[in-house]
Amino acid sequence: MDKRIQLSHGAGGTKMESLLKEVVIPSVATDVNVDVGLDAMDDASVVNNIVFTTDSYTVKPIFFPGGDIGRLAVSGTINDVSVLGANPIAISCALIIEEGFEIDSLKKILKSIHETCAEAGTPIITGDTKVVEKGGVDEIIVNTSGIGVESPYLEHNSNVVNEYDKRKIKWLLDSNLREGDVIIVSGTIGDHGVAVISKREGYGFDSTVKSDVAPLNGMIEESLKVGGVCSVKDPTRGGLSNALWEMCEKSNVCINIREEDIPVREGVKSACEMLGISPYEIGNEGKLVMGVVGEMAEDVVSAIRKTKYGKDATIIGEVSQSDDYAGVVMETEIGGRRILPRPIGDPVPRIC
Amino acid sequence: MDKRIQLSHGAGGTKMESLLKEVVIPSVATDVNVDVGLDAMDDASVVNNIVFTTDSYTVKPIFFPGGDIGRLAVSGTINDVSVLGANPIAISCALIIEEGFEIDSLKKILKSIHETCAEAGTPIITGDTKVVEKGGVDEIIVNTSGIGVESPYLEHNSNVVNEYDKRKIKWLLDSNLREGDVIIVSGTIGDHGVAVISKREGYGFDSTVKSDVAPLNGMIEESLKVGGVCSVKDPTRGGLSNALWEMCEKSNVCINIREEDIPVREGVKSACEMLGISPYEIGNEGKLVMGVVGEMAEDVVSAIRKTKYGKDATIIGEVSQSDDYAGVVMETEIGGRRILPRPIGDPVPRIC
Repeated sequence: MDKRIQLSHGAGGTKMESLLKEVVIPSVATDVNVDVGLDAMDDASVVNNIVFTTDSYTVKPIFFPGGDIGRLAVSGTINDVSVLGANPIAISCALIIEEGFEIDSLKKILKSIHETCAEAGTPIITGDTKVVEKGGVDEIIVNTSGIGVESPYLEHNSNVVNEYDKRKIKWLLDSNLREGDVIIVSGTIGDHGVAVISKREGYGFDSTVKSDVAPLNGMIEESLKVGGVCSVKDPTRGGLSNALWEMCEKSNVCINIREEDIPVREGVKSACEMLGISPYEIGNEGKLVMGVVGEMAEDVVSAIRKTKYGKDATIIGEVSQSDDYAGVVMETEIGGRRILPRPIGDPVPRIC
Repeated sequence: MDKRIQLSHGAGGTKMESLLKEVVIPSVATDVNVDVGLDAMDDASVVNNIVFTTDSYTVKPIFFPGGDIGRLAVSGTINDVSVLGANPIAISCALIIEEGFEIDSLKKILKSIHETCAEAGTPIITGDTKVVEKGGVDEIIVNTSGIGVESPYLEHNSNVVNEYDKRKIKWLLDSNLREGDVIIVSGTIGDHGVAVISKREGYGFDSTVKSDVAPLNGMIEESLKVGGVCSVKDPTRGGLSNALWEMCEKSNVCINIREEDIPVREGVKSACEMLGISPYEIGNEGKLVMGVVGEMAEDVVSAIRKTKYGKDATIIGEVSQSDDYAGVVMETEIGGRRILPRPIGDPVPRIC
């Protein structure tokens, strides 16, 4: 283990996983009776049937094409609660503000927070405001935590899963995948990462790509109404690749995806080529990756396509059994097959 | 309103109250059906019978006499949930770490978090870890949010209150005080603030005062078992004075306290004299201020004195009716009566 924290320790890849698994979680985990705990390393945890999650947002710049730190914070927390199969009922908002920050900028961020909450139908009910001297933080950091209760459609969803393959699931955990499940993404990949990087000092390339940042609780609810959804994840830090790797390792399966089916905007492709990074390894903030029982996959895709943020939803692959190797295999556009690399970290820090 | 954020906007006094009331809360509050919402500006909120709170900790130095940022974060959130009359069932832990931070220091903080959680009997079930480049934060910031459910003794407590004065209360809100209630503090005042300041660069005075930082859920439970407790608050930013002012304004009553009965350590008194600040305006992290129906006050004090952190608990005053002026009046040690000044902010920033 290193002696000092490095940027890559926070970037959502294997390096971060080792910090969490070797230092953080063993230090604080306790042997308590929770339904889904810290050791699951999922997007949220569950205790007393209450889904609970937290995230701090340190994005730079704080205003970026398609959104800002406020919309990002609310959407991110709404999504982390919702991907387990819960209705987000309340979120908290903790601001840490640098002395000298413009109150007009604060008002803009708060307006964005308010509008995103209204869109999701989830209120902020508790908060905290700290001010630190110049240099104590970089402009503003927002932490949002969220609580949720079981979606009214979660039981129907579980029944549909059970009907097809006798699998009993409740919460839509990363570890729920099984052979025969179909992998869906809800739209284009890499938009948020590219949108943020394009406005950052020192990169300075022009791009028309906007962040996809959005609350997805409505999309998840529509999917649950159809039923057959086993596992849902929002591919944020570390991108699509990291999300798929987490799902396959926790479920102990292989995931086989087809590169030609992964929707990626031209602007994202060209920006990634220019930067020498993979669009599959940069963060998304308004997309879902789902594992769905094969028989229901087309119906779930149709339902997602009818939602505001799901027009480009599509099937990108299938789950097969892992004999002794759990991994993500990609059939490339030129016809070969290769292991999809697991990112060490999101290639650019502070995109969320 | 100012154009830029100032340190005093985060210091827990009238200046902070104006930022919250004029900018933050009107921007994000929604007209939703919650039991205790953002507008109550209490220590925690309540929705679906779930008590929910959040706090970020930016204390400097991160290790101080009697505690560290980890113990502070866990205790602060446990206390904010508990003062409403709830059992804290889970907390979240979101770390924002500066690149280059020593992993050994991180481990020390995590150990402290773990030990404080174990003491309180409340697990961390969800978390987040972000790393920012040098200067993005000052060493480390910790955010903890907490959820709680109604204490098993809350109904008994309400029944005792109702028995004496027909008042119907449930959650122990700031606004519950009524004429005849007795004001209790659970111990010496000002310890945390002085302990933190004494170790800060530039102040450099010696002090044997240790922070009082501690989880108080056990103390609150013992008080509820006795019954008759109407309102509980932990006097953190802005100290005892700010806590009393918030209670009296929200309850629309007068609070009359006797200076000679307020327990203050000699070391705190002398440090405050040297710094030219009031011990009643600096933060505490292991103390409670309570309003209790008069007939039960002695019994509640006795119960608190039997708990680990309540040996110096004592009655410091009473509540009288407000005719047209709600305020805090202090009978001074030399026999006069004066309005206890309401702090503009905690006189020293970043003590929590």
